[in-house]
Amino acid sequence: MPIKAIEWIDKKLKIVDQTKLPGELVYLSIDNYNDLAEAIKNLRIRGAPAIGIAAAFGVVLAAQNVPKGQRSEFFDEVEKAVQVIKETRPTAVNLIWALNRVRAVIGKNANRLLSEIADLMLKEAQAILREDEEMCRKIGEHGAELLPQNVSVLTHCNAGALATGGIGTALGVIYTAVEKGKSVKVYVDETRPLLQGARITAWELAQAGIDATLICDNMAAFVMQQGLVNCVLVGADRIARNGDVVNKIGTYNLALLARSHGIPFYVMAPYSTFDMSVASGEDIPIEERSKDEIITPFGRQIAPKDIKVYNPAFDMTPHELINAIVTEEGVIDQPNEENISRLKKNLIKT
Amino acid sequence: MPIKAIEWIDKKLKIVDQTKLPGELVYLSIDNYNDLAEAIKNLRIRGAPAIGIAAAFGVVLAAQNVPKGQRSEFFDEVEKAVQVIKETRPTAVNLIWALNRVRAVIGKNANRLLSEIADLMLKEAQAILREDEEMCRKIGEHGAELLPQNVSVLTHCNAGALATGGIGTALGVIYTAVEKGKSVKVYVDETRPLLQGARITAWELAQAGIDATLICDNMAAFVMQQGLVNCVLVGADRIARNGDVVNKIGTYNLALLARSHGIPFYVMAPYSTFDMSVASGEDIPIEERSKDEIITPFGRQIAPKDIKVYNPAFDMTPHELINAIVTEEGVIDQPNEENISRLKKNLIKT
Repeated sequence: MPIKAIEWIDKKLKIVDQTKLPGELVYLSIDNYNDLAEAIKNLRIRGAPAIGIAAAFGVVLAAQNVPKGQRSEFFDEVEKAVQVIKETRPTAVNLIWALNRVRAVIGKNANRLLSEIADLMLKEAQAILREDEEMCRKIGEHGAELLPQNVSVLTHCNAGALATGGIGTALGVIYTAVEKGKSVKVYVDETRPLLQGARITAWELAQAGIDATLICDNMAAFVMQQGLVNCVLVGADRIARNGDVVNKIGTYNLALLARSHGIPFYVMAPYSTFDMSVASGEDIPIEERSKDEIITPFGRQIAPKDIKVYNPAFDMTPHELINAIVTEEGVIDQPNEENISRLKKNLIKT
Repeated sequence: MPIKAIEWIDKKLKIVDQTKLPGELVYLSIDNYNDLAEAIKNLRIRGAPAIGIAAAFGVVLAAQNVPKGQRSEFFDEVEKAVQVIKETRPTAVNLIWALNRVRAVIGKNANRLLSEIADLMLKEAQAILREDEEMCRKIGEHGAELLPQNVSVLTHCNAGALATGGIGTALGVIYTAVEKGKSVKVYVDETRPLLQGARITAWELAQAGIDATLICDNMAAFVMQQGLVNCVLVGADRIARNGDVVNKIGTYNLALLARSHGIPFYVMAPYSTFDMSVASGEDIPIEERSKDEIITPFGRQIAPKDIKVYNPAFDMTPHELINAIVTEEGVIDQPNEENISRLKKNLIKT
């Protein structure tokens, strides 16, 4: 079984510090929202679902740290935490979704005792974590059915246990397929610039006993040309109403390569990753990160210091390139606005 | 003007130690063929044309180090040098081509004095260097005509002055276009695992005053999607009779992406890069390199030590994806066996 990346223990949020992997397995116990915001911003915790869960507990930490009885201070502090945490990563929609869920508890219970409100907020955050575990399990079930008995998968970045509160999304499918007796081999893109594939996915898969082979991002096309992979599994940071997917930079690259080689390209994501307020992927802001991530990775300079750098953290994959989006609510084949809204209607009916 | 990467000075081969870039500009003066083989093997000197030139001078170094008058030792030592140097890199065809040229001098002059033979070998190596400079100049001229007045180019690895005896092949086109008054912006793939783009091309272009922006390899598709580049220029390590190109890993990736975005994909290479003995790219051996290049780049571990790694140094781009191959003898549009042999016939006629 894969590692547990997020736990609420003794009024603190216990997380794996992913910036220390694969060298060391270091846990952090976070007891205030500023440290939590720092942890999200500096990718100690990452992956859209995990960021959402952490954000929810961040607001809980803010609430529990206000001295008893300070009513207006309580509401101010919680709101401040929401704003600070919201600013950490502009692309992930789960972050905002989770913050809004915990904040909504206040709105609905504003007349209660502060201790009761804080309790209900904690319950909401714990529900988000529990639902996330369940979500991963269901995505794993749905996704595993798409894989043949013997399969070689290519994955990018880390959509695994370390990106969620459960067994992961894309990697959750792999764990579930293996559990069901399928034979799964995995090629792992190292995922420059921050190397989440090399540092985190390779580590996580090895820990869980999965057959994994690491490659550089630019080797994916050659691996496909040689017939070494049968499908591509990735996660998503935000999905537009029409099914366009924003995910880690390099995802669009893989989608094009998969299409060129006739290999199916699957996106695994919780239903909360859909942002129905956004018509298409072009309207989703793409975070640009520091040039240092490319010029001085791991503290060593690998390019001229004054060279210009373009460092988008995400890219946008048009829905036409996606064979299916696998959510906890079911599989959306040939995702487009119509097929996505059909799943939504089914959800409302049931 | 770009830097001079290879010079023959005072019976030694002076080269830039490219493993030290971009941190330091270190020159090596090599006076024996074992050091030269080490320099090629460990990529102190790299790029198919530069490897060919260095290999030729390597045989000259072997010849000049044999004590005077030792006739059989002379021939043995030269042959040993040819074999040792040939083994350094299995994919580049220029290496073998250049070694054969210098060795052929011996065959044609076997009855002469050893000092005369050594002199003729040196002249042959110097001819290879001079022809390479001229080759770069001509490729630059032919290639520059393919570029519009305002152009944004994507390039991969280093097909520049540091890969040749002249101004480079793919980068030679850029230098020539700029010289002719065209406005050229360049996106540079960092080119994992050995980062020749980040370490060498970015440095070389900056030195020459060219507008360059560094990206990670997996960003190329997103850069194209946004309309930021108009064409792709790369070099080649070996080209089959049918026009299939073997070049640095990641080249095939770019060719597919360029085709998907309707962007022309051009290969710049000396005519000696064609290996007419090979029918198609599938018959060209692809060098696999050490897993350490991926797991512990820059001396720091970025992935689990015991993870499996696949590290092909080159890939194969089918000729159908190539809009033109630019050689010193002219441009081959839509390269295939027929169009390539047409250029060859023209060469024989003239």
